[in-house]
Amino acid sequence: MKAAIVGGGVIGGGWAARFLLYGWDVAVFDPSPKIGSQLEAILTNAGRSLPALADVPMPPRGKLSLVASIEDAVAGADWVQESVPEDLAIKHKVIAEIEAHAPARAILGSSTSGFKPSQLQEGAQEPGRILVAHPFNPVYLLPLVEIVAGAGGDVAARDAACDMLRSIGMAPLIVRQEIDAHIADRFLEAVWREALWLVKDDVATTEEIDDAIRYGFGLRWAQMGMFETYRLAGGEEGMAHFIRQFGPCLSWPWTKLMDVPELDEELVDKIASQSDAQSGQYSIRELEAIRDRNLVGILRTLKERNWGAGKLLNESDARLAERARSPAGTGDADAAPLRLLESTVLPAWIDYNGHMTEFRYVQVFSDSSEVLFRRVGMHDEYVESGFSYYTAETHNQFYDEVGADEPYYTTVQVLLADPKRLHVFFRMHAAADDRLLATLEAMYLHVEMASGKVVAAADAATEKLMALAELHAALEKPASAGRFVGQR
Amino acid sequence: MKAAIVGGGVIGGGWAARFLLYGWDVAVFDPSPKIGSQLEAILTNAGRSLPALADVPMPPRGKLSLVASIEDAVAGADWVQESVPEDLAIKHKVIAEIEAHAPARAILGSSTSGFKPSQLQEGAQEPGRILVAHPFNPVYLLPLVEIVAGAGGDVAARDAACDMLRSIGMAPLIVRQEIDAHIADRFLEAVWREALWLVKDDVATTEEIDDAIRYGFGLRWAQMGMFETYRLAGGEEGMAHFIRQFGPCLSWPWTKLMDVPELDEELVDKIASQSDAQSGQYSIRELEAIRDRNLVGILRTLKERNWGAGKLLNESDARLAERARSPAGTGDADAAPLRLLESTVLPAWIDYNGHMTEFRYVQVFSDSSEVLFRRVGMHDEYVESGFSYYTAETHNQFYDEVGADEPYYTTVQVLLADPKRLHVFFRMHAAADDRLLATLEAMYLHVEMASGKVVAAADAATEKLMALAELHAALEKPASAGRFVGQR
Repeated sequence: MKAAIVGGGVIGGGWAARFLLYGWDVAVFDPSPKIGSQLEAILTNAGRSLPALADVPMPPRGKLSLVASIEDAVAGADWVQESVPEDLAIKHKVIAEIEAHAPARAILGSSTSGFKPSQLQEGAQEPGRILVAHPFNPVYLLPLVEIVAGAGGDVAARDAACDMLRSIGMAPLIVRQEIDAHIADRFLEAVWREALWLVKDDVATTEEIDDAIRYGFGLRWAQMGMFETYRLAGGEEGMAHFIRQFGPCLSWPWTKLMDVPELDEELVDKIASQSDAQSGQYSIRELEAIRDRNLVGILRTLKERNWGAGKLLNESDARLAERARSPAGTGDADAAPLRLLESTVLPAWIDYNGHMTEFRYVQVFSDSSEVLFRRVGMHDEYVESGFSYYTAETHNQFYDEVGADEPYYTTVQVLLADPKRLHVFFRMHAAADDRLLATLEAMYLHVEMASGKVVAAADAATEKLMALAELHAALEKPASAGRFVGQR
Repeated sequence: MKAAIVGGGVIGGGWAARFLLYGWDVAVFDPSPKIGSQLEAILTNAGRSLPALADVPMPPRGKLSLVASIEDAVAGADWVQESVPEDLAIKHKVIAEIEAHAPARAILGSSTSGFKPSQLQEGAQEPGRILVAHPFNPVYLLPLVEIVAGAGGDVAARDAACDMLRSIGMAPLIVRQEIDAHIADRFLEAVWREALWLVKDDVATTEEIDDAIRYGFGLRWAQMGMFETYRLAGGEEGMAHFIRQFGPCLSWPWTKLMDVPELDEELVDKIASQSDAQSGQYSIRELEAIRDRNLVGILRTLKERNWGAGKLLNESDARLAERARSPAGTGDADAAPLRLLESTVLPAWIDYNGHMTEFRYVQVFSDSSEVLFRRVGMHDEYVESGFSYYTAETHNQFYDEVGADEPYYTTVQVLLADPKRLHVFFRMHAAADDRLLATLEAMYLHVEMASGKVVAAADAATEKLMALAELHAALEKPASAGRFVGQR
């Protein structure tokens, strides 16, 4: 798949990064002489944050090209995204040029935060495929994209667009009725107006306003929106009760929103200098890195809880895994340790020291044991029938370091197998040079889950495991098998 | 210290829980016959979430009493918090009764979200100590509290109030100029008005609006506010540049904020039924538990990054540790294994068998080791200075099962500590019945990261670890320490 990015600023560059990291080829057109270094900075940020959200391998990165014209950018594109300045005349000119050269099948998305699709579609040859696809900065991390097709939009094109956006990990929100500023920016605009008044009137500084947001309702809104939050405030008496209680406040004179503060030099200077005092100790690059690290952490937290934006990530993983098919490993019948997993180290496994986190090694071995059990015929149905191997104890040794994205493989040597017990020795190696990274010695007991009792495993599985044990008896016993912690 | 809580609903109950968990005695007065069960539900939620934010022991819980009058509640109180309905006449009546019986030193905080302190202070005997102390639901988790003293407020009382609030883990934001709805609620009100219009006009449902928030700017606002976020959008050209670019939008007809929708039955019903469709599959209790688990995770994520609300938590830990005052910050010098983590099993940790996945146990022990290292003074700065403990080997034993949401705690027994080596034995227990779930014996080596060489750790940390080893030498050696896999 190929995406054409017209306008490569913060938003266009964010789109480019997201498409690339999901395996699309990307061509960028932007007349700015700084476009190369700008894109590089965005791609660096994106490359160290977006892949850290996945728990399955991402597809290989697409190819990026910087091109000299819109014509070159849109050639062969499946998706064209315009992120040029918010000026309708400029947008019309750019859209006309895109239409002149883009393939008939291509979707034309606009990043506009304010214009309605009917305004963008004016005078177009094929207006139905021109959609608002409004993302949020940083585009490579935040899933939301507002999709507005308007009355002149083509429903099939809109739905195809949503599928493509989901395939690059986004959450398309279809805005059924076109409206200035779509949905989210109406809220942002409302808060922004109010904030300007508070700064102008010296009620609060930019930093105090930011604290009022991020120490309070901002935390709530990262996981539930406004209505679900207020549903909770209403308690068991329900949402209608809450609204009736809260409703009267609406008519109180609590806001200056009816009026717009004049953005004169004085107010601009005031905001800029307060912002310097608040955040000036960080460069923009540093702030971006901090923001991305925070967002990755928050998103991964929600992912573990399978909630909100984190639920979307799990759904995205499932789609990626289906595409990739889980690595089944090779495995031959020679007296060599049996190969199990082949995969790459995920960015999220690397801790703040730059090392792979301890429990991620165990995760690799745990996934390897799943492969071993499936290899001897113990699939999910076996477990569903009420039997499973439980881990009784394990011994881990850590030998060498490994970096993000490094390919690795694991092997198993079966030391002992009988109907009730399985004693194995796993090794994790770097694929590039076969160096040993870590080992896990493990004892499993075969358990009837309902009673918790150790019982004999199915004959077929036991036979396969015993055959492996017999084969592996010819191998040298691992030097550290039977080792205990602290032994010299 | 004693807090009197007048009005024990969602907000008053949240205050009670926060004070109790930080060791204050709390007396609650609320005429509702359901007050006992309401408080119990809030305390259950709070008890399983607030302590999960601390990495040092919380003080012993205070004593809760339900009393029959305001007079009984405020007797001997250091802080009186009123959270009665938003009706000025009721507030004046309650404040007069509090003033008649509260000690002279007591601070009188009001949870009002809209009234100005000058309105509350009208006709009071001692108006200077009456402050707005406006918290955010859930009060026991969100740090923000807006403090407004107004022109009639006493500055010394206000500052003493802020100190007390910090000691219970809150972030007082002093609003220097009194204003209707203080600061945060002006923003919430602005968004609420806009949201009501969108629902009324069928542009979006409650669920779509919530998604527009939590998949986009809500994630941003959990960690940076509006101005710091826009600073990033302005890029290297700075905040003034951004405002000048964004400014013109203010005069666009992008909002219906100038007008207030009538909250008639039809609109109330529409919102309530959309909210049922969105969230009705969960009870309020379930939603509260989900919200709290999410907030704990987000807050802990920010804590690991020492940013925003997470930075406040680290500051709170430092205050608690200073109060607890022992070599390792334990609070007691008994020869008992040192308590490290207290938290609950996350739903994502449970595998398809219904069991906690093997590597998640190791994750718990890994997190526990982080707490241990921080406890002896090895914070991020220590690692950034180029030194760290590396795990050489571990031995895991799995004893018992544990389900999602079950509270657990971990302990460590230090078996050996010298400048280069640390040999420890971790235990994970279910909090409900103290049953042993798993153990991890681990050997760490102190490494200079650049060279990869084993070197002596900083004296201060070594001394603390050796003191623990000496203390723990009095404990029985764990029966399975030194055990190897498969041994009988």
